[in-house]
Amino acid sequence: MTTKETADLGEFQFLSGESIPTLEVAYETYGEFTGDNAVLICHALTGSAHVARRPDAGDETAGQARAWWGDVVGPGKAIDTTEYYVVCANVPGSCYGTTGPASENPETGKPYGTDFPPVTVGDWTRAQRKLLDELGVGRLHAVVGGSVGGMNVLDWLRRYPDDVERAGAVATAARLDPQCLALDTVARRAITSDPNWNGGHYYGAAESDANGGSSDSSDGRAEPEEGLARARQIGHIMYLSKASMGRKFGRRSAGRETVREEQPDPAAAFFPYREVESYLDYQADKFVDRFDANSYLYMTRAMDDFDLSAGYEGDADALAAFEGELLLLSFTGDWHFTTEQAEALAEAARAADVDVAHHVVESDHGHDAFLVEPEKVGPPLSDLLASGLEGRAITDTEPESESDNSGEFAPVHTSLFSE
Amino acid sequence: MTTKETADLGEFQFLSGESIPTLEVAYETYGEFTGDNAVLICHALTGSAHVARRPDAGDETAGQARAWWGDVVGPGKAIDTTEYYVVCANVPGSCYGTTGPASENPETGKPYGTDFPPVTVGDWTRAQRKLLDELGVGRLHAVVGGSVGGMNVLDWLRRYPDDVERAGAVATAARLDPQCLALDTVARRAITSDPNWNGGHYYGAAESDANGGSSDSSDGRAEPEEGLARARQIGHIMYLSKASMGRKFGRRSAGRETVREEQPDPAAAFFPYREVESYLDYQADKFVDRFDANSYLYMTRAMDDFDLSAGYEGDADALAAFEGELLLLSFTGDWHFTTEQAEALAEAARAADVDVAHHVVESDHGHDAFLVEPEKVGPPLSDLLASGLEGRAITDTEPESESDNSGEFAPVHTSLFSE
Repeated sequence: MTTKETADLGEFQFLSGESIPTLEVAYETYGEFTGDNAVLICHALTGSAHVARRPDAGDETAGQARAWWGDVVGPGKAIDTTEYYVVCANVPGSCYGTTGPASENPETGKPYGTDFPPVTVGDWTRAQRKLLDELGVGRLHAVVGGSVGGMNVLDWLRRYPDDVERAGAVATAARLDPQCLALDTVARRAITSDPNWNGGHYYGAAESDANGGSSDSSDGRAEPEEGLARARQIGHIMYLSKASMGRKFGRRSAGRETVREEQPDPAAAFFPYREVESYLDYQADKFVDRFDANSYLYMTRAMDDFDLSAGYEGDADALAAFEGELLLLSFTGDWHFTTEQAEALAEAARAADVDVAHHVVESDHGHDAFLVEPEKVGPPLSDLLASGLEGRAITDTEPESESDNSGEFAPVHTSLFSE
Repeated sequence: MTTKETADLGEFQFLSGESIPTLEVAYETYGEFTGDNAVLICHALTGSAHVARRPDAGDETAGQARAWWGDVVGPGKAIDTTEYYVVCANVPGSCYGTTGPASENPETGKPYGTDFPPVTVGDWTRAQRKLLDELGVGRLHAVVGGSVGGMNVLDWLRRYPDDVERAGAVATAARLDPQCLALDTVARRAITSDPNWNGGHYYGAAESDANGGSSDSSDGRAEPEEGLARARQIGHIMYLSKASMGRKFGRRSAGRETVREEQPDPAAAFFPYREVESYLDYQADKFVDRFDANSYLYMTRAMDDFDLSAGYEGDADALAAFEGELLLLSFTGDWHFTTEQAEALAEAARAADVDVAHHVVESDHGHDAFLVEPEKVGPPLSDLLASGLEGRAITDTEPESESDNSGEFAPVHTSLFSE
């Protein structure tokens, strides 16, 4: 059984102290709740509640209509919806059905824009907790998420440590490093310096144009598509690796002219329009159709702001109250969230006596690996849900102590960090 | 003796086939020419002819007035201007005195803008060759350059192999990788999608404003400062490393409000304005005052376009005619031009029987290392000029063959790539 619903959670006060009169949360559920089989999935920066394929859905082959983790979550998949009751909710501040900057402010009848309260990862967790209360789910069998969704998982462990039995934090870190903060800051500035952004109040632009309004990019009627396109392109580069970009594109020409230039540039025509540029343009074009520029600002700020140790003495202290099992998955080619960051997190968990395993996946797919290599991501997650960290598909960077495991089925351990 | 001059090289046909009626080249020379002691220095993307400090210059403490390699080139420095006749010229397409898009087109009396012909690294080399002819310099004792200036060096070796005795190619590669192509493409798109770019015809904006014209960013009167700022910020991130950014900024708050926002963003105020953002903003502000947006397009296109093997069977074939000595310097923390790329280039040179050494510098300064670590860059370059690759400060990634060197002063070889 699958459901696709929107829950009205009533007035919601954000951690900033600001409130909105009503928070609606778009969510999907898959499978039957039996009382102890609930698995919450946390989506990444531009994800939605639509984590798995739905039998009742139509064409799900491309774009946002496509389930974002359909090869990992579903009937017979690693996170098996015939066994687990899977819940995935769009987070506050996003633009896929949950209240965010593009939603109507009931007090003004207009979209919030940048009057929407600042949003943090902690607000996502608190909204998810409220939603689960509505659904009658107390303790979670597991919470699983990737990228900033993995930060959402970590926030669960410090905020509601008693509510989680097992946690899978995939391609994530305790905090972003300054290089990624820098790229995010340029991405946001690309949006806010687009004249069409207009201080965040650009909604209704398309309607005005349709009614005969000017589409001149200077009058605030158009949406900040160019700024959002630049932001997405910067993000996309962060999700790939040198190796994956070499394999996908090399330096090859796309074999055709630039798709479109708003303004003529005669000097550009001498040089090839390369596959890598064509890909980035195509992805950006698709993205600006499906995502809200203000939501991009809000979501990246929440990601940049997240710091596991904030309010604690350190990462270990933040995790210390969690008595369940924590699986960290990282990917060797990922420079957005590195294996080194995941290992530092594992060390913090070990220092806090949290039962943790850091499973390193050899991959040159970059950060995207957690989405595009389900065959590597699925087995350890499946084992986590079924048997915890003792699962045979799960490796760890630290050899287990003798007392913990003396059996013949001891997992293979990598030696990447344990030398 | 130092000179700062502009040479009129007359009509210049670019490799694209297009010509301009007159090419002026801004150059500086340091030291006395003795017939066989000329060293050409090739500048990087946003560099100028001003490579070394000049006794006649005033305040040279900051900004573009500062000599860009003043701790490496000068009297008593590694490239010693009391021994060598050093020549450095601003390249065509740039904006520091040599003809480029911001220069007046004599046929129209207006700046060229994007009507300026497309420029390639080969055009830089050809203009330098013409300039050296004017100066009476035939064969160069050495040509040295970093980053895209290193590509300029490599172009010398394939284009005028008989004119170079020794070459120092620093922090460079035979071609950019797709990740860097991608970042450059986003940087250019940030400029060309800035409404103020206006197809490259934005010159005179400041004057119009001063005469009472509107400074509204929508009327084409202003310069594309926001787009150029984004481009520079992307570039700056490429020049640093995760380690250097961690050391310089961490995740620290700058402890004050955002310097300026063109448009209000109430939601942003909740989050810290971090040191990394402050630094990028400050650098971008300085940069837009000193660099031309069209030149940034032209210079990055030349860099992206460069491929040592173009027109040859491969990199080895391109280098095969060079009978001098080639020193490659690379830096372990550099992800813009990696040590792996430099080693691939060294292997190509070895395959072509070019006398080459690849000296790897341990540094976590990123690509900037070649500018900010003169104490590591200077000694091998000094040795190259004085005694060639046998210099004691020069190491190589490949152990020398027995027959080449059986003496007691055999250089220390790294084992980074030779295992």
